[in-house]
Amino acid sequence: MMKIEVPGFVAGGIAAGLKKNQKKDLGIIFSETPACAAAVFTTNQVQAAPVLLDKERIQSGRAQAIVANSGNANACMGPRGLHDAKTMARAAAKAFGIREELVLVASTGVIGQPLDMAAIEAAVPRLSGKLHPSGLLEVAEAIMTTDTFPKAVSRQTLVGQRRFTVAAVAKGAGMIRPDMATMLCFVCTDMGATPEVLSQALRNAVAGSFNAITVDGDTSTNDTVLVLANGASKLHLEEAPCAEAFQGVLNKVLSTLALQIVQDGEGATKLVSLKVKGAPGEGNARRVAYTVGNSCLVKTALFGEDANWGRIMAAIGCAGVPIDPQRVDIFFDTVPIVKNGQGCGREAEAAATKILKTDRFTITIDLKLGRDKATVHTCDLSTDYVKINADYRS
Amino acid sequence: MMKIEVPGFVAGGIAAGLKKNQKKDLGIIFSETPACAAAVFTTNQVQAAPVLLDKERIQSGRAQAIVANSGNANACMGPRGLHDAKTMARAAAKAFGIREELVLVASTGVIGQPLDMAAIEAAVPRLSGKLHPSGLLEVAEAIMTTDTFPKAVSRQTLVGQRRFTVAAVAKGAGMIRPDMATMLCFVCTDMGATPEVLSQALRNAVAGSFNAITVDGDTSTNDTVLVLANGASKLHLEEAPCAEAFQGVLNKVLSTLALQIVQDGEGATKLVSLKVKGAPGEGNARRVAYTVGNSCLVKTALFGEDANWGRIMAAIGCAGVPIDPQRVDIFFDTVPIVKNGQGCGREAEAAATKILKTDRFTITIDLKLGRDKATVHTCDLSTDYVKINADYRS
Repeated sequence: MMKIEVPGFVAGGIAAGLKKNQKKDLGIIFSETPACAAAVFTTNQVQAAPVLLDKERIQSGRAQAIVANSGNANACMGPRGLHDAKTMARAAAKAFGIREELVLVASTGVIGQPLDMAAIEAAVPRLSGKLHPSGLLEVAEAIMTTDTFPKAVSRQTLVGQRRFTVAAVAKGAGMIRPDMATMLCFVCTDMGATPEVLSQALRNAVAGSFNAITVDGDTSTNDTVLVLANGASKLHLEEAPCAEAFQGVLNKVLSTLALQIVQDGEGATKLVSLKVKGAPGEGNARRVAYTVGNSCLVKTALFGEDANWGRIMAAIGCAGVPIDPQRVDIFFDTVPIVKNGQGCGREAEAAATKILKTDRFTITIDLKLGRDKATVHTCDLSTDYVKINADYRS
Repeated sequence: MMKIEVPGFVAGGIAAGLKKNQKKDLGIIFSETPACAAAVFTTNQVQAAPVLLDKERIQSGRAQAIVANSGNANACMGPRGLHDAKTMARAAAKAFGIREELVLVASTGVIGQPLDMAAIEAAVPRLSGKLHPSGLLEVAEAIMTTDTFPKAVSRQTLVGQRRFTVAAVAKGAGMIRPDMATMLCFVCTDMGATPEVLSQALRNAVAGSFNAITVDGDTSTNDTVLVLANGASKLHLEEAPCAEAFQGVLNKVLSTLALQIVQDGEGATKLVSLKVKGAPGEGNARRVAYTVGNSCLVKTALFGEDANWGRIMAAIGCAGVPIDPQRVDIFFDTVPIVKNGQGCGREAEAAATKILKTDRFTITIDLKLGRDKATVHTCDLSTDYVKINADYRS
């Protein structure tokens, strides 16, 4: 795996005992200097305590550390939850000798059970003492729940003579849906920034990445994307060439992680991009893409490697978007399978079935009603998805 | 099984060869006199040929026969589909010596493949000659697709000295969702009616039955509820005591069938009623109930018999309805499991888990924000659902 390091950041993860299996479940990211900070949070109205706390703290536009745990979401716990989130942050602040308001927190796991604070308070100082420059990958491991692999990406680019780095870790395999942050993701960069421009760059990048994927159409109570920009590169986002370069790199980093999340979708065997074009309005294009991408019948057909385009037509028809069924074209990669609302015959289906047997392809839906388009990435719905989620707490 | 007969109606079903397994796949219902007719159709914008044809014919408010097939949906077939639907109706009209405009049609099965018209044209006259008063159950069999049992119900009531009957058959096990007819259902009654009052009574009954269930959140291209009222009872819906009696019986018949459909939900092992109360507005109550009822994470937890109420809270929070998470109460039957947005503890979970192990229970969600309520019936999402739908066409 490539090296995941950002100048001025140290990180690490350990097993604090929150997970039953002795795997890493607590991660910390620390910036040697206070960093500019921005965030995107879940749109779910039921919000976990760490989300509530971070929402308040991010207002200052500054942060220096992130403490995150898996194994427990610290959600639906009332005043106790908020108290525990603050205590978790305070433990890190104490270990680093910084103000507790500079610490952000994140939790993921089961809802409605109290955090084991004794375990956390014992582990935080221990972990704080052994952070290191290449520890981001340990954080990626420490935030895994049903994920089957840790998700981390790093990119560097030159602006003039100076180099900057954007690295990020993420977790997420289920409860993935549009219009929200969709999972945990922590981005570290040595670019300098102001909170406003950093926040705008983050929002831009999220729109085309985490807000363009779906696994099961469910939204979580904990989803959070945090970015810390510590300026160690001596570059600054408000300098013209930096803005474009940074946005490009950030988009790429978050898109890569978003696709990793879909690829790791619970029980998923295929990563399928749904490209809707010819739509009247981008919102309508997205709506069609998401309706198809969330249809249980479409997703089980993908799992069954069955070119059952009738289910795609049916899903398009109930997206709540005005369409003309007699105009719709559908392609599997470049193979036309529906032309003007009708099937292209057995040969086309046979060709499409070959594509379905691969683990990565694109379904293009052309509504032929307008000029707008949208792409959403989804995965198939397998028997393993059900098994994973039926047995999650046992 | 109880006798399913309605005075003045004959019916029957045979294997025409549309299904691969030699099972019944063609059914006909015939009223000895032209009947008053009303219908409700799918709201999917992609509509199968039989739906398009029936929508036109039902305008007259009269019909005398219904011809239905399974094994093929006759959807997404362009002009050929409409031609085939008409031909199917004409074959029956010829056999009965009636005008073809008095024949309604329905199809269910795979989308996008041509109907085997030779098989249908051979079978229709053969079947027409052997219809009989108790043949409705054969129709129920002939319209089954992934259904595991035929669905038929009959009820009789007295108005004064006179008796009337409402009997209905239905099919449906997947692609079940709100705001549409949701499956095939044919209702026969010897009540007399005008098209307007019959249509209104049907709409009332559908709202509380087929439009209050969900299996997988997908809508079909073919869903149709047809009612024929032939007046053989000498009672008439426009006479005051009849209206109330008929509505009551029709509601009961359609509700029973709707619950049978959920119970037979593809791969379902549990029938779960989601009752939302304390909502600001009935629409909001329905929206919360459907969001919870369609959540893959909730449905897999039900399958896993896991009292994972956090997923219910998360689903409530993303229904797009204003809520106060700190007020929400949740009950499994009468056991409180969430109070004011927080879990009620291990004992409550243990009691809830016992309820989860049964195959029929109610989850009540009290938003404590208003006076409105709604109930939606759903089922769990099992590994078998995925298997059934992954392998459907193979």
